[in-house]
Amino acid sequence: MSRYWSAVVHGLTPYVPGEQPKLPNLVKLNTNENPYGPSPKVLAALRAETGDTLRLYPDPNADRLKTALAAHFAHFGVTPKQVFVGNGSDEVLAHVFLALLKHPRPVLFPDITYSFYPVYCGLYGIHFETVPLTDAFEIHPQDYARQNGGIIFPNPNAPTGRALTTAAIEQILTANPDSAVVVDEAYVDFGAETVLPLIARHPNLLVVQTLSKSRALAGLRVGFAIGHADLIEALERVKNSFNSYPLDRLAIAGAVAAMADKAHFERTRQAVMRSRETLAKELAKLDFDVLPSAANFLFARHRQRDAGELAAALRGRGIVVRHFRQPRIEQFLRITVGTDAQCLTLTDALREILG
Amino acid sequence: MSRYWSAVVHGLTPYVPGEQPKLPNLVKLNTNENPYGPSPKVLAALRAETGDTLRLYPDPNADRLKTALAAHFAHFGVTPKQVFVGNGSDEVLAHVFLALLKHPRPVLFPDITYSFYPVYCGLYGIHFETVPLTDAFEIHPQDYARQNGGIIFPNPNAPTGRALTTAAIEQILTANPDSAVVVDEAYVDFGAETVLPLIARHPNLLVVQTLSKSRALAGLRVGFAIGHADLIEALERVKNSFNSYPLDRLAIAGAVAAMADKAHFERTRQAVMRSRETLAKELAKLDFDVLPSAANFLFARHRQRDAGELAAALRGRGIVVRHFRQPRIEQFLRITVGTDAQCLTLTDALREILG
Repeated sequence: MSRYWSAVVHGLTPYVPGEQPKLPNLVKLNTNENPYGPSPKVLAALRAETGDTLRLYPDPNADRLKTALAAHFAHFGVTPKQVFVGNGSDEVLAHVFLALLKHPRPVLFPDITYSFYPVYCGLYGIHFETVPLTDAFEIHPQDYARQNGGIIFPNPNAPTGRALTTAAIEQILTANPDSAVVVDEAYVDFGAETVLPLIARHPNLLVVQTLSKSRALAGLRVGFAIGHADLIEALERVKNSFNSYPLDRLAIAGAVAAMADKAHFERTRQAVMRSRETLAKELAKLDFDVLPSAANFLFARHRQRDAGELAAALRGRGIVVRHFRQPRIEQFLRITVGTDAQCLTLTDALREILG
Repeated sequence: MSRYWSAVVHGLTPYVPGEQPKLPNLVKLNTNENPYGPSPKVLAALRAETGDTLRLYPDPNADRLKTALAAHFAHFGVTPKQVFVGNGSDEVLAHVFLALLKHPRPVLFPDITYSFYPVYCGLYGIHFETVPLTDAFEIHPQDYARQNGGIIFPNPNAPTGRALTTAAIEQILTANPDSAVVVDEAYVDFGAETVLPLIARHPNLLVVQTLSKSRALAGLRVGFAIGHADLIEALERVKNSFNSYPLDRLAIAGAVAAMADKAHFERTRQAVMRSRETLAKELAKLDFDVLPSAANFLFARHRQRDAGELAAALRGRGIVVRHFRQPRIEQFLRITVGTDAQCLTLTDALREILG
């Protein structure tokens, strides 16, 4: 607390990201990182960019990357003018809240969802209302047919992992022609359907994706948004009033290479999905209720044992999972899908703990 | 223009950075980049970090870098809790405006200064007043002894290059104990005095620096702020409500290595200062009035010829300099100090143009 702080600072409750423990040899299943590394072609592109040209500013518009992303999604009719890029999808989302979701009416998002959303609202003074998930932890499209200044939800949702169909999302879009509807597809590549095909006919749809998860580049910080050029222009205006060069030269080069290596992407995401299905079965055998997941994590509740105690016991064995002390989900653990070996270490440890 | 835009977006006038031309073989003297590359040790550190660990998030607090910066400035009594880091000093400044300069009273900055300052004010709805430089384009400390909600200026100032003494800045600090006073030292290493020694006795002082200029890392995007721990906490709160991980793993590793290589830093900044003095003399011979500069650029006005025409003629010869179409300085060119060879190319071209 200080007399130099603005009123904004006094009122903030910052987001707390999942722990990044500095201990070696942990089985780290708490922040939904990809268990496989990025494409070797990404690493080669990064090394090739590591030279004297780092003395020069990057392209403030990251045109190479926008062109690469538009080309990657060209079958959905995406053009470079429909692409916005930022320093991780967290930065993209920050600009989205200020540019497209700050209106007199409240923005709507699920009661159980990415916990950064209310933090952005706090930062920018945005009024919000949460919409309860169903008892089965699903988003119910009809619940979003009410007055609002914008709608945002992840698909699949986090931390539940449950996905909506394209038809269900289109129902939300159609019911809200006057609102921007933002679909946060951070985890979409692990088994959900992207709604990018809807961009062409819904000028109110913005899709946000990240290279942190399915491209295994959490350490590089690249996210993007795709939508009607008018929505993208709003984001560019805010970005260019905040920081001209959020993507450094290495991030641009690495991201372009990541989008190009479709074989690595396919191989690793298929491996994660296979491991997830095996892990879900093993957890069920250990008496967990496991929500169906289209993400690279599982959200699971043991039928007898307290989630906080289980998380602590796992940590004692060098395994970190995420536990949210939040109403409705305080008995769940969110478990990142690791390699098969990591999943086995986890289920072996749980078997011991559960006795 | 779109019905989905927030009121904020409608009112924005984004910052326009200096052009990053994609043509090869330009003599690029328009965005104050360092003519020498970063330290070879930085490039080695970046390559060493280019591996599978990029699948993992970076440390959201960048503790390694904060510790390295505190160690670098330990002779001024700086501790890690007094250090904030961000995605270039532009991002640091954005957070500074929201966290420390948004108050009921107007923030003050010079009429001729870094043109991003009024843009930040536009983004965050901050009232500002500009304080005219003297006729000699100097900041006059007494002019800042008036009611305000914060003060910010670069030292040396941009685009003039003129520096204030530490005593002059302390006069501003002492006259404004109730305001945060932000000294933007982007160019300080090229001949001005840092006010970091004043941090210990002025809890209202925040110093902002960047690795883009004297560490030749414009392409990597790392800036930092140093001040009383209370000021740093305000910045952390805003940052952690905006984006948890603005510095990627490569940026952290590269920045740590850059601060460690003091020999490369000394050698290259001395070379830039020597070239600047030679270039200033050559420009004077060509009938330019050249302001005394403590930065890696010169601000110069030809006694007869129009600045816009000179800039266009230089561009026709493959040489890019910066020309601001702004009252009081529309007859000046801001010329980045390049290598001696680049400076010679520039003066040869000017000699031809001036006939």
